[in-house]
Amino acid sequence: MRIHGRHYRTIRPAEDGRSVEIIDQTRLPHAFETARLSSLEDAARAIETMQVRGAPLIGATAAYGVCLALGEDASDAGLERAAARLLRTRPTAVNLRWALDEMAKAVRNLPRDRRLAAAYARAAGICDEDVETCRRIGEHGVALIREQAARKPGETVNVLTHCNAGWLATVDWGTALSPVYQAHDAGVPVHVWVDETRPRNQGAALTAYELGAHGVPHTIIADNAGGHLMQHGRVDLCIVGTDRTAANGDVANKIGTYLKALAARDNGVPFYVALPHATIDWTLDDGLRIPIEERAPEEVTEMTGRTADGAVVTVEIAAPGSPAANYAFDVTPARRSPTTLSPHMPLSPRATV
Amino acid sequence: MRIHGRHYRTIRPAEDGRSVEIIDQTRLPHAFETARLSSLEDAARAIETMQVRGAPLIGATAAYGVCLALGEDASDAGLERAAARLLRTRPTAVNLRWALDEMAKAVRNLPRDRRLAAAYARAAGICDEDVETCRRIGEHGVALIREQAARKPGETVNVLTHCNAGWLATVDWGTALSPVYQAHDAGVPVHVWVDETRPRNQGAALTAYELGAHGVPHTIIADNAGGHLMQHGRVDLCIVGTDRTAANGDVANKIGTYLKALAARDNGVPFYVALPHATIDWTLDDGLRIPIEERAPEEVTEMTGRTADGAVVTVEIAAPGSPAANYAFDVTPARRSPTTLSPHMPLSPRATV
Repeated sequence: MRIHGRHYRTIRPAEDGRSVEIIDQTRLPHAFETARLSSLEDAARAIETMQVRGAPLIGATAAYGVCLALGEDASDAGLERAAARLLRTRPTAVNLRWALDEMAKAVRNLPRDRRLAAAYARAAGICDEDVETCRRIGEHGVALIREQAARKPGETVNVLTHCNAGWLATVDWGTALSPVYQAHDAGVPVHVWVDETRPRNQGAALTAYELGAHGVPHTIIADNAGGHLMQHGRVDLCIVGTDRTAANGDVANKIGTYLKALAARDNGVPFYVALPHATIDWTLDDGLRIPIEERAPEEVTEMTGRTADGAVVTVEIAAPGSPAANYAFDVTPARRSPTTLSPHMPLSPRATV
Repeated sequence: MRIHGRHYRTIRPAEDGRSVEIIDQTRLPHAFETARLSSLEDAARAIETMQVRGAPLIGATAAYGVCLALGEDASDAGLERAAARLLRTRPTAVNLRWALDEMAKAVRNLPRDRRLAAAYARAAGICDEDVETCRRIGEHGVALIREQAARKPGETVNVLTHCNAGWLATVDWGTALSPVYQAHDAGVPVHVWVDETRPRNQGAALTAYELGAHGVPHTIIADNAGGHLMQHGRVDLCIVGTDRTAANGDVANKIGTYLKALAARDNGVPFYVALPHATIDWTLDDGLRIPIEERAPEEVTEMTGRTADGAVVTVEIAAPGSPAANYAFDVTPARRSPTTLSPHMPLSPRATV
């Protein structure tokens, strides 16, 4: 996608051939900055601190993290150490494990001196496959938006999304937002209700940023507002991403997704999950067994923003001394109740191509 | 309730007999400051800017606003002007209209020179009645907490609440939190999950503040987290307040309440609404006809907090230029579905005494 007229991917090998360039997403929306990862530890920390986030991009970063590790130590032990370190960074996203498995498969039977080149090749392949998968998710998803558009000719289709499953969460295009971009580019009038997505505000900070940069009409709302909008017929469909999907279709996604799915069911609003196959955990048949990451309470009690004079500062927003808890994901069950009108099903290219 | 060992009500006539003292809730939790209201316009602005908020306290402030207005102009026209100005401040809370009706009844048939004293007497009466009503809501509500405690002897009862329906929302005690205070004071082990309550953070700022000041164990969570906690059995009951309740039991309360009610229903968690009779609008039999206030988008895109050096500053948190919408309330329908296990019913002293 484009930022200030220039095409970007969220991750790419740097020109020196020994490091990787990312967009530092912790600086958005206040500043657009790139950062350079030069070691395994850099890559692991970029994932932990959420300089990169979003299940597909976490997978791609882990792949390049293996490359950087092999540049330091191309032995079997080095490979194992890299995989162990990277796997520890975030417990919920399954793309991470998938990408590490792909990397191990690509290099483990090679002699040491050929491992580095093979690793970079496979990491580039993972990125290219992600771009193509996301493009095709968009092709399929745009049909769902057109379907809603056909029901209200001349009117705007209102999509609600939670968190950021746009191009910043992937290598390019996005998952949940790929259909939105393709609809917008094709001239279908589309508007996005952007959930703020507390506590890290990925909606207000990242989704609003990338939709704005592309020119897609959107409105930021508090996470609390989606039910009210659905009650009043102001949401035509919901599309979200996922960090891990169980084999039974249960979906772990950013905390609060489950509440929006309940409201969609209660109001007969279609609710879709857009995902690449690498996000499905075929070893788990119950979403409630997906490990849910707990993050630092300060993400709830503090907030970073820009003052009137342009400084970016962190402020405490809660009552001093009050404890906070910070669960990063919740699970939306795949079950259909007799009252549901919502086609709650994964929108996977694997399933629909 | 007590702040720093001193007993406070949220509103009281000042010693000069010509003004009214309030706690300036826009300064909490960063500073505890009182403010003086000396005119009708002061009172109206205190409600509009949310120096005072919460349906019962809005009603009490409106009552004193009429007193201040009569001190300026005790004519019939003055009385009408005061009521019209105060009624315009917040569209959703029905206690406002109820309090203005009470004040008009108390003074309109009196000669001008007796109106002011009668008004102050009635305003004091409205406050005393609110305190007693809230105390009794607590007496009834504590039985519901004891019921949960009996199901898990020796364990802590976990209550989830949304927004602030504590003593800061009333004259004293609170509505939703009155049962919690009474349970805590009686030695029943109780812990409160405090929804942050974006966009104005009344949970993290006010509910956490007053629970902390009273010593009640509590944890602040993002508004997104309640469904996850209920799925995992970590919420025993929900208690919220209401700004207006329709005659059919539909409840307008802070935006996001509806989402928590849906999660409670989906997980068999009892969901209670604690309210005084003045919050019931007997003229409305459908909650979806309750007017929902839309407030400034800056409440969504900006956040006020305390920097590390103690300064209170406002920062922009959203992508620059992105529009936002700010719906202040939503409506939780009173209907019981066949799948519900939740006794969703108003907990009114009128109904239960």
